[in-house]
Amino acid sequence: MLVEFSAIPMRKESLSKPVSQIIDIIDKSGLSYQTTAMGTLIEGEWDKIFAVLKRCHNLLRKNYHRVFTTIRIDDRRGAKNRIKGKVDEVEQILRRKIRR
Amino acid sequence: MLVEFSAIPMRKESLSKPVSQIIDIIDKSGLSYQTTAMGTLIEGEWDKIFAVLKRCHNLLRKNYHRVFTTIRIDDRRGAKNRIKGKVDEVEQILRRKIRR
Amino acid sequence: MLVEFSAIPMRKESLSKPVSQIIDIIDKSGLSYQTTAMGTLIEGEWDKIFAVLKRCHNLLRKNYHRVFTTIRIDDRRGAKNRIKGKVDEVEQILRRKIRR
Amino acid sequence: MLVEFSAIPMRKESLSKPVSQIIDIIDKSGLSYQTTAMGTLIEGEWDKIFAVLKRCHNLLRKNYHRVFTTIRIDDRRGAKNRIKGKVDEVEQILRRKIRR
Repeated sequence: MLVEFSAIPMRKESLSKPVSQIIDIIDKSGLSYQTTAMGTLIEGEWDKIFAVLKRCHNLLRKNYHRVFTTIRIDDRRGAKNRIKGKVDEVEQILRRKIRR
Repeated sequence: MLVEFSAIPMRKESLSKPVSQIIDIIDKSGLSYQTTAMGTLIEGEWDKIFAVLKRCHNLLRKNYHRVFTTIRIDDRRGAKNRIKGKVDEVEQILRRKIRR
Repeated sequence: MLVEFSAIPMRKESLSKPVSQIIDIIDKSGLSYQTTAMGTLIEGEWDKIFAVLKRCHNLLRKNYHRVFTTIRIDDRRGAKNRIKGKVDEVEQILRRKIRR
Repeated sequence: MLVEFSAIPMRKESLSKPVSQIIDIIDKSGLSYQTTAMGTLIEGEWDKIFAVLKRCHNLLRKNYHRVFTTIRIDDRRGAKNRIKGKVDEVEQILRRKIRR
């Protein structure tokens, strides 16, 4: 299961401090992940991932009065190593096109 | 905590059957909810809501090879009855504007 | 084309004032819409909808330093009156189930 | 303005072909972008970005009966080079933590 997670606390402007606290929690979880400019991709099973996301969301809610969180899931039977694999597949198709 | 949930199985086109199966699960959970054309709003605590969403997601994954799920959370300290309350607040502001 | 639009300015907490300004713009556009606790559903053609959404987003960006906006589109060939129609379809399936 | 774009045509399962067609359009636009496993990040002005996204969305709608598209915007006054810059900021904070 591939998940993108993004949490935004209501505050004046900069988010780099709360975001770094989240990345720290995800990093210590041992799950595969990738940080992007719009969220963090995480790969694993539902229970493991949502236990981590709950900890992330609750940390922000402890520190801020209001938190907006977005979770997007792509769950495909038997699919593994999707953080890298999905991008590789697309790049292969594009490379084949260029060669022709 | 206010949550919007939307799950899309990869299939040919119509989604009304899988969506109705999801609404059925949410309805039986006893949580407050509202069905819209783009998802279902649900109100309650993290653990209760995510137990229900996991059942919904897994039902689709049992029936379809690939499922895309989107979850958006607005979690505000002390806030209750937000499915109706948030819309009421905005409508009050708009009505006051018109009267002036 | 059915669109859900949600814009969140980075500010301390309450969003009812900026949201009511957005609804006001959408209302005056003449497009079909429905306000929910997590966003606004709008129905129409791409160009008309995105002209309105740009006005909404820019109004917030004029008043706040940072704005997060989410747009979700369900675009289905030949589909019309989807704000009400999609919910009706699902409710019909659920009612048939109960009767049996 | 930083945008994440994801478009999913309703079809049986694999999405790598339609996704590669989208990346091709974005690549030729000249806008800065990054492809991830859950979408494509694009940076630029509203009009330029949405002209490209409309072309992407319409290409899929020409080839498939139903398309779900998600667009998430982070628009911050004066912010530039955010695809790389936002991740760098967070990594700096995390590195400082480790050193202490």
